[in-house]
Amino acid sequence: MDKVQPRILSGFMELLPADQMSFNKMYDTIRSVYERFGFLPLDTPLIELSDVLLAKAGGETEKQIYRFEKGGSDLSLRFDLTVPLARYVSQHFQDIAFPFKRYQMSKVFRGEKPQKGRFREFYQCDIDVIGVDELDLIYDAEMPAVIYNVFRELNFGDFVIRINNRKILNGFFKSVGYENKIADILRIIDKLEKIGIENVRRELADLGVDSASSDKILSFIGIRGGNDEIIESLKGCGISDETFLCGVDEIEQVIKYLRGFGVSEDCFMIDLTIARGLDYYTGTVYETVLKDFPSMGSVCSGGRYDNLTEYYTDKKLPGIGISIGLTRLFYQLKEEGVIKNEASTPAKCLVIPMSPDNVGFALEAAGILRNSGIPTDVYYQAKGMKHKMKYADRLGIPYAVIIGDDEQTAGEVMLKSMASGEQQRIKLNELPAKIKAE
Amino acid sequence: MDKVQPRILSGFMELLPADQMSFNKMYDTIRSVYERFGFLPLDTPLIELSDVLLAKAGGETEKQIYRFEKGGSDLSLRFDLTVPLARYVSQHFQDIAFPFKRYQMSKVFRGEKPQKGRFREFYQCDIDVIGVDELDLIYDAEMPAVIYNVFRELNFGDFVIRINNRKILNGFFKSVGYENKIADILRIIDKLEKIGIENVRRELADLGVDSASSDKILSFIGIRGGNDEIIESLKGCGISDETFLCGVDEIEQVIKYLRGFGVSEDCFMIDLTIARGLDYYTGTVYETVLKDFPSMGSVCSGGRYDNLTEYYTDKKLPGIGISIGLTRLFYQLKEEGVIKNEASTPAKCLVIPMSPDNVGFALEAAGILRNSGIPTDVYYQAKGMKHKMKYADRLGIPYAVIIGDDEQTAGEVMLKSMASGEQQRIKLNELPAKIKAE
Repeated sequence: MDKVQPRILSGFMELLPADQMSFNKMYDTIRSVYERFGFLPLDTPLIELSDVLLAKAGGETEKQIYRFEKGGSDLSLRFDLTVPLARYVSQHFQDIAFPFKRYQMSKVFRGEKPQKGRFREFYQCDIDVIGVDELDLIYDAEMPAVIYNVFRELNFGDFVIRINNRKILNGFFKSVGYENKIADILRIIDKLEKIGIENVRRELADLGVDSASSDKILSFIGIRGGNDEIIESLKGCGISDETFLCGVDEIEQVIKYLRGFGVSEDCFMIDLTIARGLDYYTGTVYETVLKDFPSMGSVCSGGRYDNLTEYYTDKKLPGIGISIGLTRLFYQLKEEGVIKNEASTPAKCLVIPMSPDNVGFALEAAGILRNSGIPTDVYYQAKGMKHKMKYADRLGIPYAVIIGDDEQTAGEVMLKSMASGEQQRIKLNELPAKIKAE
Repeated sequence: MDKVQPRILSGFMELLPADQMSFNKMYDTIRSVYERFGFLPLDTPLIELSDVLLAKAGGETEKQIYRFEKGGSDLSLRFDLTVPLARYVSQHFQDIAFPFKRYQMSKVFRGEKPQKGRFREFYQCDIDVIGVDELDLIYDAEMPAVIYNVFRELNFGDFVIRINNRKILNGFFKSVGYENKIADILRIIDKLEKIGIENVRRELADLGVDSASSDKILSFIGIRGGNDEIIESLKGCGISDETFLCGVDEIEQVIKYLRGFGVSEDCFMIDLTIARGLDYYTGTVYETVLKDFPSMGSVCSGGRYDNLTEYYTDKKLPGIGISIGLTRLFYQLKEEGVIKNEASTPAKCLVIPMSPDNVGFALEAAGILRNSGIPTDVYYQAKGMKHKMKYADRLGIPYAVIIGDDEQTAGEVMLKSMASGEQQRIKLNELPAKIKAE
């Protein structure tokens, strides 16, 4: 028979078990923090009706959609978790208690050109809080407080959550007279780190911003210092625009609340250069940078939006959200050598019967371990001892529990640490406590 | 602006948070048992290349595929987790330690006509063990041992895992002279419970089975009794076909091992009527029935196959697997009223600051609870007490932690049980232990 070459499409991540274990550990850590902050789980369909999913989309996004017909319906794979959230909240409005805090950690799809570190199928790990008509400002601090706990527990070194407020930016640009070019100017400023100050200045000039205003803009976004210093500078810079003052007041409150959440001062900072590309952010915005890997860019971004559901309902539902692109983050950390795989299996013990006569006792031992909550595998194949130990070794199982006739007769096992090679005979009923103690 | 009606395609399950919590609890229980038995996690792409995914498929399966072109590639959404496993094992053969025990619990897609209880997007929760050239028979007992633990922990009442062996069936039919009609006869017998004995007899006659052989067939599959009695009947029925005897020997071993695994005798039984439709099962086969809900049919099925990867490689990789259709199972149990939702949120406590002045202390309280591993939400919105309690009530949060000026001054909180309405003042630092104790 002709064989088909087993392969997958480029731009799709598929992991070997050891990597999958590390990936799942990250996934579980994020989920655990999200749940600890009281976010509700959600799991929307991967396939949505195109007219619903693409109500807002256009341009680049639309080109990337996996879209197809089936059974007479025009269908699309979701490209993010925000549009499905908007659809969900509108559709199930009557059944939801607000503020609605939800998390969703699932795959999304974008048919981009494949390139290193860009994926067509990837996990987003989102939290959002949606209010009706209004949403307390303290949620603007809860988001980075959650992210602070996530990255502390992920334990990939120092990180900083950069915070800005679109009202500060919008108000400032109104005050320098470029109110109608805010979007364009913000887009140019957003590239400051990428293209450098001279290119920004040139692009601003191309846009028609006069040189004096360019100076003002660049000196404004160049305000530096500790969080309190920046707030003082903003308050003292003589701009009386209402939106601006509102933004300054908001960011001051958010900083105060962040301290209330117990977030370390060195893990968050006001950064006036952050705008975030998306059109719909209207208040607080975030980016998160791993200090040891600044070239990764933001590994977790988000912000506040005034109206999540305008394409589906007349209700006004403001919200705030933040997202971790887990697939990309995992890939980059793996490339950097930061992710250390520990094992290919959840099993902590491999029970090894020396002969078929020992299988019954081996099953009993495995049962006792499992009932104590210790993940346990048993090696049944009739192979030599070397082969059995190699299996434990390849999978990274820390303990071998060897059972021969002597052990079985005595109601004991031989416990071997795979790392040290040390062996000791131990009573079967003492085994779980022993493993847990080590 | 014109609004788009928010909706999803029929045949797709989307849950409200309380149902999602119950669903996730089932998912997590299954995953936890799979991991406790040492199965490795896997997460293959949802989109596969059509020529790879459909190497074997044909007929009904192929019609149900979500298939589309993108970027010049012919792509399909996976319709099960077995074909991707075969592809994965063939593709990554050199990097895998065998026997390869993997679990995968993910969505699959079938564009069926929508009908009650049938889904186009649904979770399959699969375990499989793959060997190279051979795979010990004890894995045929490990599968139902895992499933026994899963359904015991899911706690949906009594259940029984029905076990048969295709070699017994194949050998028997060879002995009555209908070797070349085995597939057809098995297909008719498979419908015994659905269509009844008379219809089976008629269909057998239509197939050309003479009346005497029909009697033999029906009396054979009518063998009843305890597991050991059935085995004795099979041994004593005078059939000397080698395949048959091998099957009897295998099922005897499997039953013996199942006892070794500590599986209760009333949770498994030999059932000679089970054949399983799929062509590729070659040995032990399983079905699982919830005793209180026989009309649900099998909620967990599987079996042994000789060669998983024949479309991708010349290597011979026998395996055994079993699968839970979680979406359907959840839907059916929900319909039957068996699933009792407990809460819409993971949060066990809702911290409620009485006024904005109490927010700082509320954040401290929430932090202490979360750091103790207790999922905690805080109600920040400036609403009346009634509104705040209603939020806790709607979400099913068991404890309200109320903080007013008095409590704050004393370093205390008012702990209220939402179920009993009882309130008590308690020191903040004693709160986590108190919650955990209750």
